[in-house]
Amino acid sequence: MRIHIQNDSTGDWPPITPAHWDVVRPRLTVESEVTFGSRPGDFRAVARDIEVLLISASALRDLLPLDTPLLKIIFCTWAGLEDLAPYEWLPPGTILLNGSGVHAVKCSQYVLMALLMLANQLPALVNAQQEQRWERLYGMTLEGRRLTILGLGAIGGASASLARRLGMRVTGMRTTARSHPDCERVVTIDQLDSVLPETDYLALALPLTKATENLVDRRRLAMLPRHAGVVNVGRGTVLDEEALCDLLDADRLAAAVLDVFHAEPVPSNHRLWTTRHLIMTPHVSADDLQTNNALTLRIFADNLNARAAGLPMPNAFDTSRGTRVRT
Amino acid sequence: MRIHIQNDSTGDWPPITPAHWDVVRPRLTVESEVTFGSRPGDFRAVARDIEVLLISASALRDLLPLDTPLLKIIFCTWAGLEDLAPYEWLPPGTILLNGSGVHAVKCSQYVLMALLMLANQLPALVNAQQEQRWERLYGMTLEGRRLTILGLGAIGGASASLARRLGMRVTGMRTTARSHPDCERVVTIDQLDSVLPETDYLALALPLTKATENLVDRRRLAMLPRHAGVVNVGRGTVLDEEALCDLLDADRLAAAVLDVFHAEPVPSNHRLWTTRHLIMTPHVSADDLQTNNALTLRIFADNLNARAAGLPMPNAFDTSRGTRVRT
Repeated sequence: MRIHIQNDSTGDWPPITPAHWDVVRPRLTVESEVTFGSRPGDFRAVARDIEVLLISASALRDLLPLDTPLLKIIFCTWAGLEDLAPYEWLPPGTILLNGSGVHAVKCSQYVLMALLMLANQLPALVNAQQEQRWERLYGMTLEGRRLTILGLGAIGGASASLARRLGMRVTGMRTTARSHPDCERVVTIDQLDSVLPETDYLALALPLTKATENLVDRRRLAMLPRHAGVVNVGRGTVLDEEALCDLLDADRLAAAVLDVFHAEPVPSNHRLWTTRHLIMTPHVSADDLQTNNALTLRIFADNLNARAAGLPMPNAFDTSRGTRVRT
Repeated sequence: MRIHIQNDSTGDWPPITPAHWDVVRPRLTVESEVTFGSRPGDFRAVARDIEVLLISASALRDLLPLDTPLLKIIFCTWAGLEDLAPYEWLPPGTILLNGSGVHAVKCSQYVLMALLMLANQLPALVNAQQEQRWERLYGMTLEGRRLTILGLGAIGGASASLARRLGMRVTGMRTTARSHPDCERVVTIDQLDSVLPETDYLALALPLTKATENLVDRRRLAMLPRHAGVVNVGRGTVLDEEALCDLLDADRLAAAVLDVFHAEPVPSNHRLWTTRHLIMTPHVSADDLQTNNALTLRIFADNLNARAAGLPMPNAFDTSRGTRVRT
């Protein structure tokens, strides 16, 4: 099997190296030949020969349209692939996989951090520190608090697990209402409105699709209790940022911790930078410099092994829905 | 048994009420008669009749010297009682208990929050947000990271447990080197210097005693690796604040999350307020408005039951060491 690993040529992310590959190679049940590249020319030099391509969504977008007659599989290292939509560029017969699972541990720990920050009133205490005010705002433990997680993919599911282990009562929302081991209940989108008024913390771990765009809009945000907090690690445009800022300004929501935004980088002088009780991080919640490359290759190998065994590939991406194929 | 519960007359803390007492009363194995008060006059009206007093350290200090001929037990709701030292005011034959255990769940969750904030570079990202800089600083998971916890009392022990459950490698330091279920190793103070250079995160959960005052001084802070982070939830004067700020300013330490300080409130214009990569909270890490009063009464009852059964009271305080009696 002829594999090409195309690293990003820009950015500060460390490349996947032959040393990474040597670690994962024993896991792979099929013969393979691997090349590595980072510049567009590196890709073009091998494009007509390769059967499998591992690449980020941004690097792939820059290489379209593809001239890859033998290509069977594209493994995209990102979980959310909406930047590649519409998917008409995908050659017929080529299967697209996403990087779901790579980010679960890191991103769920970020979600746990955000929940603990909300429970400890950190967003308000950070404002108090900036203003040199000693204001004793008391927090609480997570036990018994009601968490609603929108999206129970790898990240949402791992977040539910961590939250449950600290005694939270977790409601999950996903496309189907089938149960989840770490959720007290699972609801579908049509029940969301009834869940919001009973939510202490709302965590968004959704991909951007036609169904999720602006899902958490002004009307729905206003249904949360005044003491509620919001976390978003999925995609920015699932949430109405302006409405969130309005509600925080009006003291109609307690706080928020956001890692994703409508525009990234967030423009200078945007109100998000200075809205009170709002902590922003620059779309880094899912990325772990120390483990992401190794995890990516492990999941990549598991998918190739599944295919070799005649099984469905767990990371197959459903371009019509814009998420991983439902398993 | 004649019990008096004296609430603080000042401050924003909700009082312990008869309703709280009704919940814990079935747990108590001894007959009891209880009064409640908050003003000094409430205490004086019953002082000569009571056998057991439940009170905060600050309220107790304001009532000294005691004129309580029948008093056998003082249960102090705080864990650290250094404000009551020297203990010459303690009537002979009266046993002092502290509130150890009340704060374990809440404070260990704060420590976990702080560790996750350090691992996710939140202190630096908060500074970036203040300066409206989109700077993608990447974090990492806690798995495999080396945490050193100074103090393995109720708070330090519970923190070790949470950290271990997320895969951290925990070293604990306490008075004796006996093992702890959540620590890979336990060291004593004479081994501290050898542990510091191998520490990614240093968490302080120590009472203030002669042995701990300025324990983490400039020399020891400088032994930590440059990438290390510091958390303090014990007492401020265990740590050299000025040295910490110097090391943060010089980029010789990565970040810190502090809840306790040399002077509280921290004075206006103190460098702590503005030191970069430093998050401050106003001595609130251990306090949970929703559960502290109920937990306090449960631990209080357990101690009275132990005494009635002829067993050592678990919260007996050793005034010579300034910590709970070693069990």
